[in-house]
Amino acid sequence: MTTEQLVAQIHKKQSFLCVGLDVDINKIPKHLLKEEDPIFAFNKAIIDATHSYCVAYKPNTAFYEAYGIKGWQALEKTIKYLNTNYPDIFTIADAKRGDIGNTSTMYAKAFFEDLAFDSVTIAPYMGKDSVEPFLAFKDKHTILLALTSNEGAFDFQTKLVEGKELYKLVLETSKTYSNSENLMYVVGATKATFLKEIRQIVPNSFLLVPGVGAQGGSLKEVCKYGMTSTVGLLVNSSRGIIYASSDENFAEQAKIKAQEIQKEMAIELKSKL
Amino acid sequence: MTTEQLVAQIHKKQSFLCVGLDVDINKIPKHLLKEEDPIFAFNKAIIDATHSYCVAYKPNTAFYEAYGIKGWQALEKTIKYLNTNYPDIFTIADAKRGDIGNTSTMYAKAFFEDLAFDSVTIAPYMGKDSVEPFLAFKDKHTILLALTSNEGAFDFQTKLVEGKELYKLVLETSKTYSNSENLMYVVGATKATFLKEIRQIVPNSFLLVPGVGAQGGSLKEVCKYGMTSTVGLLVNSSRGIIYASSDENFAEQAKIKAQEIQKEMAIELKSKL
Repeated sequence: MTTEQLVAQIHKKQSFLCVGLDVDINKIPKHLLKEEDPIFAFNKAIIDATHSYCVAYKPNTAFYEAYGIKGWQALEKTIKYLNTNYPDIFTIADAKRGDIGNTSTMYAKAFFEDLAFDSVTIAPYMGKDSVEPFLAFKDKHTILLALTSNEGAFDFQTKLVEGKELYKLVLETSKTYSNSENLMYVVGATKATFLKEIRQIVPNSFLLVPGVGAQGGSLKEVCKYGMTSTVGLLVNSSRGIIYASSDENFAEQAKIKAQEIQKEMAIELKSKL
Repeated sequence: MTTEQLVAQIHKKQSFLCVGLDVDINKIPKHLLKEEDPIFAFNKAIIDATHSYCVAYKPNTAFYEAYGIKGWQALEKTIKYLNTNYPDIFTIADAKRGDIGNTSTMYAKAFFEDLAFDSVTIAPYMGKDSVEPFLAFKDKHTILLALTSNEGAFDFQTKLVEGKELYKLVLETSKTYSNSENLMYVVGATKATFLKEIRQIVPNSFLLVPGVGAQGGSLKEVCKYGMTSTVGLLVNSSRGIIYASSDENFAEQAKIKAQEIQKEMAIELKSKL
C-alpha cells in the first residue's frame, strides 16, 4: 500500500486508529478456547467488528511466537484474512527486527513477501545496513523505533549524543538512508510534547504512536504536536480495544471502544485539516 | 545450562567454537532439496559432523522465518534434535529481539520455554524493561548486542554519549539490571582491539564474537584481548563452516573446517590458561 492510499483511507474512515492484535491466550474469552485456532478466531471476530473504525492492524509477533508453530499459523491466517477480506487495511508486523545486511534481507522477505505485510517495525541499533534491506521493497514501509513508550526508553534513547538525544540522531541519520521515503517512525505518546521537536526533524513522515490508552497518553496532545497536512499519524490501541470485555460479547464491546476513539479522531481531523 | 557447565564443555572439547546455522535454501547442496525438510536435513548433517569440535550452535531466526511455517518447523526440529541428542551443547537463538516488558516476556517464553534454547540475542535500544524479562529465567542467558560487526555499527554504537561510546554505556548500564549475572554480550571481532576496553567494563562476562571468518577478524587477536581466566569467549563461524562445500560431501568438509578452527582454539587455550 502506498502512503497516498493510506492517507485516502484515513480521510474516508475519518480515523487514524491502528488496532494492536497482541493476543494473549490467557486473556481472550474462555468460550473461544474450544475453537481449533482460538487466537485466529479471536482476531477474526475483532477484525470483523472493528474494521470500519480503524485503518490499520498491528499484530505483535511476540504473542504469536510464544505459541510456536500454532502461533505462527495464527499469524499467517490473520494476515491472509486481512489481505483477502480487507485489502484497504494497512498492516503492520510489530516485529522490532534488525540484523546485518543479508540477514535483514531474510527478515524483509519473511514479512513483506511470505506474510505480505505492508510494513514492519525495526530496531535501529545496528544502523544503516540493518535498515536499508527493508527500505528496498517498493510500496512497503519500514517503521523505525525512535522514541518508545516504556520506562527503559530513558536508558539510551534520550541520552545526549553529539549534543542531541540519541532518538533524534536516529531520526536524522535514517533520513540519509537509501529509499528513506519508505520510513515511518515509532514515537511513544507518553511524551507527546517531544513530538514538536520530532516534527522539526521529520516534518512529513508518518509516526506510529503506541501508548494511547493502556500505556497513557492523550490523543489531543498527540494531534496538537504531531499531525501534519497529510495527517502523518497512526495511533495504536491494543488492550483498551481487544480486551474491552472477556464475555461472549467481546467483539461488540471492542467495536464500541474502537468507534469511541474513531469519533475523537474525526473531531481532531476536522479541527486541524 | 549454567555458565560453569559451558566452561567445562570448553575445556573438555578444547574449543569455544559456535557454529552459526544461517541456512539459506539457495546455498545448500542441491541433492538435499528432495528431502521433506531440506533445512533440517542440512542442519542435522552439519550438527552430526561438527558437534565434537564446537560447544554451541546458533541458528539465526531470520533464515527460518523467511520460509514461514516450514521454516519455523525446521527451527523447532533443529533445537529439539540438539537438546535430545547433544544435551551438552549450548544453544543460542540469534533473534535480536527486544520489546516492552510484557511483550519481552512473551519472546522469552517463546525461546526459553517453547523452543528450549539456552540463550537468546537481544537488542538494547529499548532499555531495562525490555531486557530484564529475559534475565528472569534461571540458567538461561541473555546475549545483549553491544558492538556489532557490521558497517552500520558506526551509525550509533560508537557515537559518544556522556563522553563514552554508546556500546560502552550499554555494557555499563546493563550491569545494573536485575539478574545481570545472566548477561553475555555480542562483540564484533572486526574490532578486536576494542575488546581490551570492553574487558575493563565487563571483565568476566562471556562475549559472543561473530565475524571470525566470513566477516574478517583474527582469532589470535580476539583471544589476546578478550580471553578471561574462565575463557569468557564464544567465537562464531557460520558460512565458513556450513558452506565449506556445496557437494554431497558438504558435512565432511564442514567437519574439516570446524576441526581446523578447534585446533587453533586449543592452541590459544593452552597458551593462555
